Amino acid sequence: MPHAFDPGYAAEPFRTLCMNYPEADVYPSGQFRVEWGPIFHRGRLDGSARILVIGQDPAQHETILRRVLVGEAGRRLQGFLAKLGITASYVIVNTFLYSVYGSVKSATEKDARLVAYRNSWLDALLTGSKVEAVAALGTAADAAWNMWKQTPAGTNFNPAYAHITHPTQPESSSKNDKVKLAAATKALLQNWNSGLQTLSPAIKHPDVATPLVLYGGTWAQNDRQSIPEGDMPPGLPSWMHEQDGWAQRAGKDAAAKRRNITLTVPKGIVP
Amino acid sequence: MPHAFDPGYAAEPFRTLCMNYPEADVYPSGQFRVEWGPIFHRGRLDGSARILVIGQDPAQHETILRRVLVGEAGRRLQGFLAKLGITASYVIVNTFLYSVYGSVKSATEKDARLVAYRNSWLDALLTGSKVEAVAALGTAADAAWNMWKQTPAGTNFNPAYAHITHPTQPESSSKNDKVKLAAATKALLQNWNSGLQTLSPAIKHPDVATPLVLYGGTWAQNDRQSIPEGDMPPGLPSWMHEQDGWAQRAGKDAAAKRRNITLTVPKGIVP
Repeated sequence: MPHAFDPGYAAEPFRTLCMNYPEADVYPSGQFRVEWGPIFHRGRLDGSARILVIGQDPAQHETILRRVLVGEAGRRLQGFLAKLGITASYVIVNTFLYSVYGSVKSATEKDARLVAYRNSWLDALLTGSKVEAVAALGTAADAAWNMWKQTPAGTNFNPAYAHITHPTQPESSSKNDKVKLAAATKALLQNWNSGLQTLSPAIKHPDVATPLVLYGGTWAQNDRQSIPEGDMPPGLPSWMHEQDGWAQRAGKDAAAKRRNITLTVPKGIVP
Repeated sequence: MPHAFDPGYAAEPFRTLCMNYPEADVYPSGQFRVEWGPIFHRGRLDGSARILVIGQDPAQHETILRRVLVGEAGRRLQGFLAKLGITASYVIVNTFLYSVYGSVKSATEKDARLVAYRNSWLDALLTGSKVEAVAALGTAADAAWNMWKQTPAGTNFNPAYAHITHPTQPESSSKNDKVKLAAATKALLQNWNSGLQTLSPAIKHPDVATPLVLYGGTWAQNDRQSIPEGDMPPGLPSWMHEQDGWAQRAGKDAAAKRRNITLTVPKGIVP
């Protein structure tokens, strides 16, 4: 069977954007894992996107695949998009080009060079586009959206907009406490239901006409979906987009972990 | 400074070739690391190549970068090309799409499906092209070339051709014996000098007019060169193309090593 793949960044304006990106003078190495390089996007760059998603920052799976939101958070987002009838017509960029290390200083978040570069991507993806809805995952993404909305191009573009909870906020906020995790998950799903109700009426051109079915109080089976092969660079094995957890930061201390990514082919793949 | 990158496989016929590649039914998992996916090429796909290089198979650095001949062998090849005045106008494909595991059976090497797919790449890169010279690295690559030469397209295309020793043959043949390594290296460099003398007169359009300077009896400083950033997917950090040894297969036994690739950022990169 043919393997779809993402054609990448050969076409302008993306080619120029991928040649000229902010580096450690804008993204300080004390706050970002600049040593692993920037990671730009996932999804359609050909103008076919009907929804734009703004994520936060890439992690280790993203670093290997060189596409954003491909791990657990990406799988949950994929389920959210499916509820809107969107299986292909999306494009995703992050608030930050590099993986956050520790926390981001306010001055960095507001750095005019950081904001201008991100706005150039949003200009390219939104101005004159078919995008009908925008979702921001988490607080930093919401701030990114608001910064773009203050630009001339942003002022003139008014899609449906939802700021929803970041897909893995329940895990990061509950620190292995199962009771807290269940409560945070329930809260996230309620929040996502509000987001769906805001965005769904605006999606006039879904890939698949889909009656809106809201989330329950826990994750259901189809709420997590595989990352489509067509979002990936060519030739990647199927476990890389169908599975999660195969990339880890390993090492005896924080410094060693920062320098490491360990890939392990999931069980059952190698005969 | 702008970061050049390889635009990839969006243009035909490469798009179709990267969507339809032989899998484990053609490349048996007992002989190839099919679990890491196929790796297609490195260099120019836009018709500007003046020399085609056929390598053998990808290893761990290639698996991460998804481009061929980017490790030590690639660095030595880059030096060889530089002696011909070629700094950009090359294209490289491998004999095998997947990393060899153990050894390749003769029946596999001759599998008509394996050969036909590789010939499709050679057809795409050579027929009606500007290529003036071809170099095959090692015995398997020489066999691949001869198989294509027997096709109708191959019969009609007669560039200068050199079958030269594989760049890391000295290491693989000498098994940590320093005396053997020195002798094998000297033999390789003599062999490469013959190759240079065969190919150099045919390169009528070098990137940089360069008087031919042959190798000495050992590797000299400029005989190894960095892989150009413009051969890589966008956004990769500079250490990935400037340095080597950052990807290893780690594990307590052969089975664990087969499932693992461990990336370590070289020293001096993370502040």
